[in-house]
Amino acid sequence: MIAIYPGSFDPVTNGHLDIIDRCSKKFDKLIVAVLKNQSKVGMFSVKERENLLKETLKDYDNIEIVTFSGLLVDYVKQRDIDIIVRGLRAVSDYEREMQMALTNKSLYEEVETMFLISSTQYSFLSSSVVKEIAMFDGDITKLVPEIVKLAIEGKIREVNK
Amino acid sequence: MIAIYPGSFDPVTNGHLDIIDRCSKKFDKLIVAVLKNQSKVGMFSVKERENLLKETLKDYDNIEIVTFSGLLVDYVKQRDIDIIVRGLRAVSDYEREMQMALTNKSLYEEVETMFLISSTQYSFLSSSVVKEIAMFDGDITKLVPEIVKLAIEGKIREVNK
Amino acid sequence: MIAIYPGSFDPVTNGHLDIIDRCSKKFDKLIVAVLKNQSKVGMFSVKERENLLKETLKDYDNIEIVTFSGLLVDYVKQRDIDIIVRGLRAVSDYEREMQMALTNKSLYEEVETMFLISSTQYSFLSSSVVKEIAMFDGDITKLVPEIVKLAIEGKIREVNK
Amino acid sequence: MIAIYPGSFDPVTNGHLDIIDRCSKKFDKLIVAVLKNQSKVGMFSVKERENLLKETLKDYDNIEIVTFSGLLVDYVKQRDIDIIVRGLRAVSDYEREMQMALTNKSLYEEVETMFLISSTQYSFLSSSVVKEIAMFDGDITKLVPEIVKLAIEGKIREVNK
Amino acid sequence: MIAIYPGSFDPVTNGHLDIIDRCSKKFDKLIVAVLKNQSKVGMFSVKERENLLKETLKDYDNIEIVTFSGLLVDYVKQRDIDIIVRGLRAVSDYEREMQMALTNKSLYEEVETMFLISSTQYSFLSSSVVKEIAMFDGDITKLVPEIVKLAIEGKIREVNK
Amino acid sequence: MIAIYPGSFDPVTNGHLDIIDRCSKKFDKLIVAVLKNQSKVGMFSVKERENLLKETLKDYDNIEIVTFSGLLVDYVKQRDIDIIVRGLRAVSDYEREMQMALTNKSLYEEVETMFLISSTQYSFLSSSVVKEIAMFDGDITKLVPEIVKLAIEGKIREVNK
Repeated sequence: MIAIYPGSFDPVTNGHLDIIDRCSKKFDKLIVAVLKNQSKVGMFSVKERENLLKETLKDYDNIEIVTFSGLLVDYVKQRDIDIIVRGLRAVSDYEREMQMALTNKSLYEEVETMFLISSTQYSFLSSSVVKEIAMFDGDITKLVPEIVKLAIEGKIREVNK
Repeated sequence: MIAIYPGSFDPVTNGHLDIIDRCSKKFDKLIVAVLKNQSKVGMFSVKERENLLKETLKDYDNIEIVTFSGLLVDYVKQRDIDIIVRGLRAVSDYEREMQMALTNKSLYEEVETMFLISSTQYSFLSSSVVKEIAMFDGDITKLVPEIVKLAIEGKIREVNK
Repeated sequence: MIAIYPGSFDPVTNGHLDIIDRCSKKFDKLIVAVLKNQSKVGMFSVKERENLLKETLKDYDNIEIVTFSGLLVDYVKQRDIDIIVRGLRAVSDYEREMQMALTNKSLYEEVETMFLISSTQYSFLSSSVVKEIAMFDGDITKLVPEIVKLAIEGKIREVNK
Repeated sequence: MIAIYPGSFDPVTNGHLDIIDRCSKKFDKLIVAVLKNQSKVGMFSVKERENLLKETLKDYDNIEIVTFSGLLVDYVKQRDIDIIVRGLRAVSDYEREMQMALTNKSLYEEVETMFLISSTQYSFLSSSVVKEIAMFDGDITKLVPEIVKLAIEGKIREVNK
Repeated sequence: MIAIYPGSFDPVTNGHLDIIDRCSKKFDKLIVAVLKNQSKVGMFSVKERENLLKETLKDYDNIEIVTFSGLLVDYVKQRDIDIIVRGLRAVSDYEREMQMALTNKSLYEEVETMFLISSTQYSFLSSSVVKEIAMFDGDITKLVPEIVKLAIEGKIREVNK
Repeated sequence: MIAIYPGSFDPVTNGHLDIIDRCSKKFDKLIVAVLKNQSKVGMFSVKERENLLKETLKDYDNIEIVTFSGLLVDYVKQRDIDIIVRGLRAVSDYEREMQMALTNKSLYEEVETMFLISSTQYSFLSSSVVKEIAMFDGDITKLVPEIVKLAIEGKIREVNK
């Protein structure tokens, strides 16, 4: 069974890694897909996000990291993916996720989105929260992998130069 | 009894048409009102949105399409409208709607907002969702009337030129 | 336009009266309907609830108080009622109301449920809250009409005898 | 990959069947498990619920129907099940589902609960709603399979005798 | 500043203790109050609940354990308590808490209810969840203090005898 | 006990004043803190917001008005503040508030955020709502203090010049 975990990953957090790790144990193959969203400028380029994911997930045998643009359901069809996986945080936008799942289903009847509940210690975590804390010199050690922490600090030094 | 159904309608979707059709059967007169919001640029101009509504709703005898700027409650007072109608999607921003209804009531005691639940097949539908799908060449045939589909496709061709 | 406002009304509170008063100004006729629910024993009998409503609403010309059993949609069909009205409290069970509205629509396509937002000062009020406060000798003067207050106090005296 | 879909199924509805059908296409094997809950008396006995499921699902090759008592996670461990599947209705008790999923995870780290969004036409449907409608002679043809409809009508005739 | 933390505590869980510990550090005095609710029969008597709290909290200097019946606001007035404290779980009934807070304020203008967010590891925990797990021989070691665990096991042995 | 009430206050509304007034009665000292958020341009400068607060709150002995940039928890540590206070509107973004509280706690274990429910008459009120109404010549007399009303009208005259 092949699953896809799509997202912006700008950058990947320990909350994402929790979902990825749990999925990698359940599915034969997990595709982690960085969405190219032209209208939104992130802290990291799509290429950089992909590289941070690759570096962070290099020890997993059954994970593939890709980038894609266009409709998620088209990518799912083309790659013959079985299900879409999304994390639901205790304090997340549940309604937005339902809207996306129902929209995708209306576009492609065969697609299924399955939701996992984030582990409680990450129930407040998001990429935006991490970046906001880092911007004000707060400690993000427990929120992202070391390599992502260094990358964020590099970006902030650039901006402040 | 005269009702007003205000919105951005950028553009009108089958979800809006569901609410409009159901209201037209219950009220003596239904005013569908396109809000002129100067701060937000849409895909369609206010004039174009009005025309799409007019074309789509031309077979209804008791519907009037208008555009208005300023406070909704002022327009309601001026036209002696009995109630404001809003749709609530199963997955919509319920809290935002409550805030608007309570704000309007605080501005004009006589005004009443009544909410209808969207039909379930439209519970995920919004103008933004439609535009996003169309932007990526997804099929919006079941989400908007034919004439709106053509108009959206025209807009996207313009942008991509 | 004829509306029905169904409920348990065990007993009627100022929150119900807020909805009733606002509806009576908008609709030609408002039917306030006490639901006979055999499985749930209330503080007041259905007859007593009806009488408290009749006494409280005696000055309204366009209000009829009825009791009914069976499916609401059957009553709506039989009486040729245009819409069902329900109040939504800021802190109410929104999801339950949606479920009932969608269920009713699935049973009878023509029926429409319209929701009004409770006035903010009643956003916490329910019959259960009133009874609970009264049970512990709390002051319910501002929560129910005088006649209902007396009836509740009578019931509690009976129980404590 | 083996999934379990636990529930009361008192009785199975078209909403359950929607989830079951979609899961049976994705998982190698799907175990539909009727929970024996001693404290709650249902309309149907656990045996009857199991039989209605068996009859309704007889054409699926990869579905097994079981009954179980005790903790779900113990059953999951014992049968070496990969994931628990639950449906989320647009208008369902999302918070309750999250609580159960987190509780199960705290009891057995390896267990994963995955949620599917109910198809929109079933977003209001539950076994209780079906029984309530049937009790008042409402039409439940579109809400449950024919065999379940007959069984409910039989139960109601018994009660009314 | 004197705070009161009211509840059923049937029995006290680690989630309650999280709130109590955090409050005891902030307030001069914390009154933990077991509500005597005649209509609801618990696993433990009010006296037993009080004793479990006393034993569990014996090392805190500024905590007083009491039981009370009647309206909370009356007790608050009588003891000249400054604020009511309540925990909000990520997955708790937020609306119910708001209703109680607003009701209490309507009864006694001076009273203030302040809410703390439960620590994430307890965001799913409640007394009912603990009892349900224990009933089916699940492990509750991490959910309640040792002394409470023993008490629950004793109660279950009694029931099963 | 020292509390801090942080916010944008662009500008202060009667909803904020409700929370401030209630807190000033409970805490020894209340610090009202205007957050300097460089990325968001407001109607008023941070200096102007501070001055409007100072003028409005000049009769309170135990209130200090400050501005701050950086992480809230750093300011809390530095000033040895006991708790953070936030208002929850009946119709507010509860989830966002929980996320902030949990994030702050993850950054600084000692910090506690306590939530007060807004008084019901302000449950729909926000600075944005006030500005939107004023922009369209709506009456904001009951929504903000007189001095803030004049300041807003001044700003709007400037824009329209």
